Amino acid sequence: MNSEKVMDLALRRGFLWQSNEIYGGTAGFWDLGPYGVRLKNKIVNLWRDVFVKDEGFYEIETPTIVPEIVFIASGHVKKFADPLVECKKCGENYRADHLIEEATGKNVEGLPPSDMDNLIREYDIRCPSCGGELSPVRMFNLMFVTSIGAARENRAYARPETAQGMFVSFNRVVRTMHPKLPFAIVQVGKAYRNEISPRQGLLRVREFDQMEAEIFVHPEEINNHPRYYLRENRKLRLYPANYQREGKDEILEITAGEAVRRGIIHNQFLAYYLHVATEFLRKLGIPDEAIRCRQQLEDERAHYSRDTWDVEVLTSYGWVEVAGHAYRTDYDLKSHMRISGRDLRYFVSYDKPQVKKIKKAVPDKKKIGQEFRERARDIMKMIEEKQQDILSGSDVRVDIDGKEIDLSEYVTVKEVEERVSGERIVPHVVEPSYGVGRILWCVLEHAYREEDDRVYLSLPPWLSPIDCAVLPLVSKDGMPERAMEIADMLKKRGLYVVYDESGSVGRRYARYDEIGVSFAVTVDSQTLSDNTVTVRERDSRKQVRVKIDELADKLRKLLSGEEDV
Amino acid sequence: MNSEKVMDLALRRGFLWQSNEIYGGTAGFWDLGPYGVRLKNKIVNLWRDVFVKDEGFYEIETPTIVPEIVFIASGHVKKFADPLVECKKCGENYRADHLIEEATGKNVEGLPPSDMDNLIREYDIRCPSCGGELSPVRMFNLMFVTSIGAARENRAYARPETAQGMFVSFNRVVRTMHPKLPFAIVQVGKAYRNEISPRQGLLRVREFDQMEAEIFVHPEEINNHPRYYLRENRKLRLYPANYQREGKDEILEITAGEAVRRGIIHNQFLAYYLHVATEFLRKLGIPDEAIRCRQQLEDERAHYSRDTWDVEVLTSYGWVEVAGHAYRTDYDLKSHMRISGRDLRYFVSYDKPQVKKIKKAVPDKKKIGQEFRERARDIMKMIEEKQQDILSGSDVRVDIDGKEIDLSEYVTVKEVEERVSGERIVPHVVEPSYGVGRILWCVLEHAYREEDDRVYLSLPPWLSPIDCAVLPLVSKDGMPERAMEIADMLKKRGLYVVYDESGSVGRRYARYDEIGVSFAVTVDSQTLSDNTVTVRERDSRKQVRVKIDELADKLRKLLSGEEDV
Repeated sequence: MNSEKVMDLALRRGFLWQSNEIYGGTAGFWDLGPYGVRLKNKIVNLWRDVFVKDEGFYEIETPTIVPEIVFIASGHVKKFADPLVECKKCGENYRADHLIEEATGKNVEGLPPSDMDNLIREYDIRCPSCGGELSPVRMFNLMFVTSIGAARENRAYARPETAQGMFVSFNRVVRTMHPKLPFAIVQVGKAYRNEISPRQGLLRVREFDQMEAEIFVHPEEINNHPRYYLRENRKLRLYPANYQREGKDEILEITAGEAVRRGIIHNQFLAYYLHVATEFLRKLGIPDEAIRCRQQLEDERAHYSRDTWDVEVLTSYGWVEVAGHAYRTDYDLKSHMRISGRDLRYFVSYDKPQVKKIKKAVPDKKKIGQEFRERARDIMKMIEEKQQDILSGSDVRVDIDGKEIDLSEYVTVKEVEERVSGERIVPHVVEPSYGVGRILWCVLEHAYREEDDRVYLSLPPWLSPIDCAVLPLVSKDGMPERAMEIADMLKKRGLYVVYDESGSVGRRYARYDEIGVSFAVTVDSQTLSDNTVTVRERDSRKQVRVKIDELADKLRKLLSGEEDV
Repeated sequence: MNSEKVMDLALRRGFLWQSNEIYGGTAGFWDLGPYGVRLKNKIVNLWRDVFVKDEGFYEIETPTIVPEIVFIASGHVKKFADPLVECKKCGENYRADHLIEEATGKNVEGLPPSDMDNLIREYDIRCPSCGGELSPVRMFNLMFVTSIGAARENRAYARPETAQGMFVSFNRVVRTMHPKLPFAIVQVGKAYRNEISPRQGLLRVREFDQMEAEIFVHPEEINNHPRYYLRENRKLRLYPANYQREGKDEILEITAGEAVRRGIIHNQFLAYYLHVATEFLRKLGIPDEAIRCRQQLEDERAHYSRDTWDVEVLTSYGWVEVAGHAYRTDYDLKSHMRISGRDLRYFVSYDKPQVKKIKKAVPDKKKIGQEFRERARDIMKMIEEKQQDILSGSDVRVDIDGKEIDLSEYVTVKEVEERVSGERIVPHVVEPSYGVGRILWCVLEHAYREEDDRVYLSLPPWLSPIDCAVLPLVSKDGMPERAMEIADMLKKRGLYVVYDESGSVGRRYARYDEIGVSFAVTVDSQTLSDNTVTVRERDSRKQVRVKIDELADKLRKLLSGEEDV
């Protein structure tokens, strides 16, 4: 498979490697090497160009260590868990569902632990490494647990998603930025998942980077995206739930608008951002036929989602999810309202104040005055404060100077007309969530090329890990000095360049081809007489002569894709 | 103090806020809001311009969750701890040294716990919040502890510094990048410190971002920085250890070169990067007189450092360390070699192979041949393998067919000449380590300005959180439409712009002044007739008319500082 060759190149050329190698390596953790970091940062910045610059969303940064209460509200403390079995003999841990799947071919995801125990007994499933008997299945929470401060009871977790930080800060963003619905809070940062047994290289890891957007929408406007016209007629490659249920292994090519009209995609916001993701992946060099939007089946959807679409890329591991698109509704904001007791509703102003008929518990002033005299004002105030409780029929008995009275006996419920300037609503959320490491891996796999005499990464110029390599043709006759001058000049003009004189020029071209550097600038004897250099493009190996004066501008245009060699 | 006003502005304008506010806030954790993130990213990118682009260092990324063995090697498991006392009555936790300092005025940092116990008894120090009796002092390790995988014994920590990831990956970087000494590995990322009782806003937090460089130097070249000539004659503002001991509250202004010559700064690498840090802070708008390099006193230096200089910025909290510069010697690489058993030495090639006299244990072929016959070859091989042990006089008895022999009896130690092409050495390390959050805070404090009629942030244009605000003078007569067009055009040209039509233009100017936006583009009635706009500079409030065709280029030059309004 390709994955081994790509991994081999990535290791050899310093894109990535397993963490803590000198201590035998740590499963599920990867380092990014110098070219990996450059590539990652370019991917992240392209994402920001779309989600921060173009869409105008608010990027924030919230901590990775988060107190437990937040994940009680989000449901992660209860539900973010995998079934675990331990070998009674050698102590090795396994995902119970994976062992059962391998032994029976059945997909048992989501089955209760006791059912899994039965299957383990029935099929006599044993420890794959030593043949020992397995323990009963228990649910293992996948959050890394720690505690804040010296008191052990302040339990906290390494966050399993960046999303909750954005829900918890919702009020602050509204108060400081005064955004109009729809708007979004976005975040780029680490998330963690304490996998029981990680596998598949960069695809299933314990620490990873996410780029997430929480898009807040008026629930009545979920089919009224303000820039829908930009995407409505663009094609999506869909793999809907019913295709999967019917075993139909095909792609439905259809416009975003048509998919919404036919009820395949739940709403305009999902459709719009599925197209944004598709276009983003194309910009990273992933070919169209290796991109699809797969609808999650009802039983695989997270508890908070009404419709979820995974944008997937075809790799040597099969189709891999790189960006989830969940319609989270008002689940998260409502949960945090309930647990924190704070009002997280958003005030929607009407275009003009409206006169609305509303029910009101009007105090019976005469009766109150007669019965309570100097305490009458206090009673009136209590009635005002408990309006909602009185109207909903809740218990509103209070103690007045030792005597219990029922406030509801001192009011008349009336329908009155009031001018209201707006209303408080809980926005719905559509969440595009991208995994940086997975995208980086897919980019490497799809850029990997073999030709008779070379291996190279055909990255788009804007993803080139360094902007260009500056090479003297030979390391004598004043060429190194001239080349170093040119490298310095390009650095001063803001380009990331590498100067290299080691080995034959052919070997140096090969080296930078493998790293995916799009352009190499070569200084030869002609340079010394006419102040021109050659610029060589990696894929075509085509070379053009460029004046040194015009080099920085030419490279800029080449790197942005504005011009070709 | 200024800090309250700055914090007030930062909160009001969405630069930052305490994390998890709806749950009462979490001490020592801060969120960055939209403008805080933009400012932070600009600071980080300017740092990368210096350390990655200009210095040519290798940026990598290693995980934040790290297995215990790494911090056993680094010494953090043993030494990264603060003295903790608990109130026996209310259970509150305190830093023992802080309580003692407050009560006695004595600096007791580094004192053993039993001595602190004595002081607590002597001065009858009690719980500041309830007056209760205090527990005995114990050392509390400041790393957040967790474990990897389902087996509880796989203890791991949230890293207290990014540095160790770079030492642990040293071999990989050498193998993939083939760097020549001196070179550096750098990293930007999260670090954690589980403070007992955090205080002082952004200055002492539990989760923060570091920008660190581990510069590897041949120990004999520590006074031979290859680009020293660039900094040697530049001034540094020093506060050396002897000034502090003598209570001399002055700054020593002196060139980097002179400071090294006079033995004030240990070596050229420290001096060079102290100047890099000084220049970096100036670029961020910190005035010269608010920057100093303070040498750590011997008893405050970390266990691994031979000389440490903190670059400090004067703030309303006093002088604050924003970048440490430690000469870590070979401490870390040697520790990891010892604990991992791997060879982390670097092979230094000589310019040409050298003939060196070395001691060698030469086998006594005749004696071996006579005594062992067909086993003679094996004996010769063993002697070759155990060269080092034989020369060092270690026990080299081996078992040959049931008979114990002492290899040292079958050799003659001779001095022989050999051609060697290089040698393996353990590089020394100089480490500039920057704290992003502290720098961000210092930038805000020093940018804060009050005038009669306004408050604003006088940020340098290249730090402006957004590139410009585009404002229609009034929101009618076609001005909003034209302004939106211009905003879109600027976005397409790669600028981060905000369009805003809410409120009077004066109030909008005031808003963006407070955020520190350097330039506002205003569309007025003249725009509609002659296709020009005004560009207003924040500090001077000067306005110039610019043709729309030339606007993007003009803004670029203004933002880079190449031109003034």
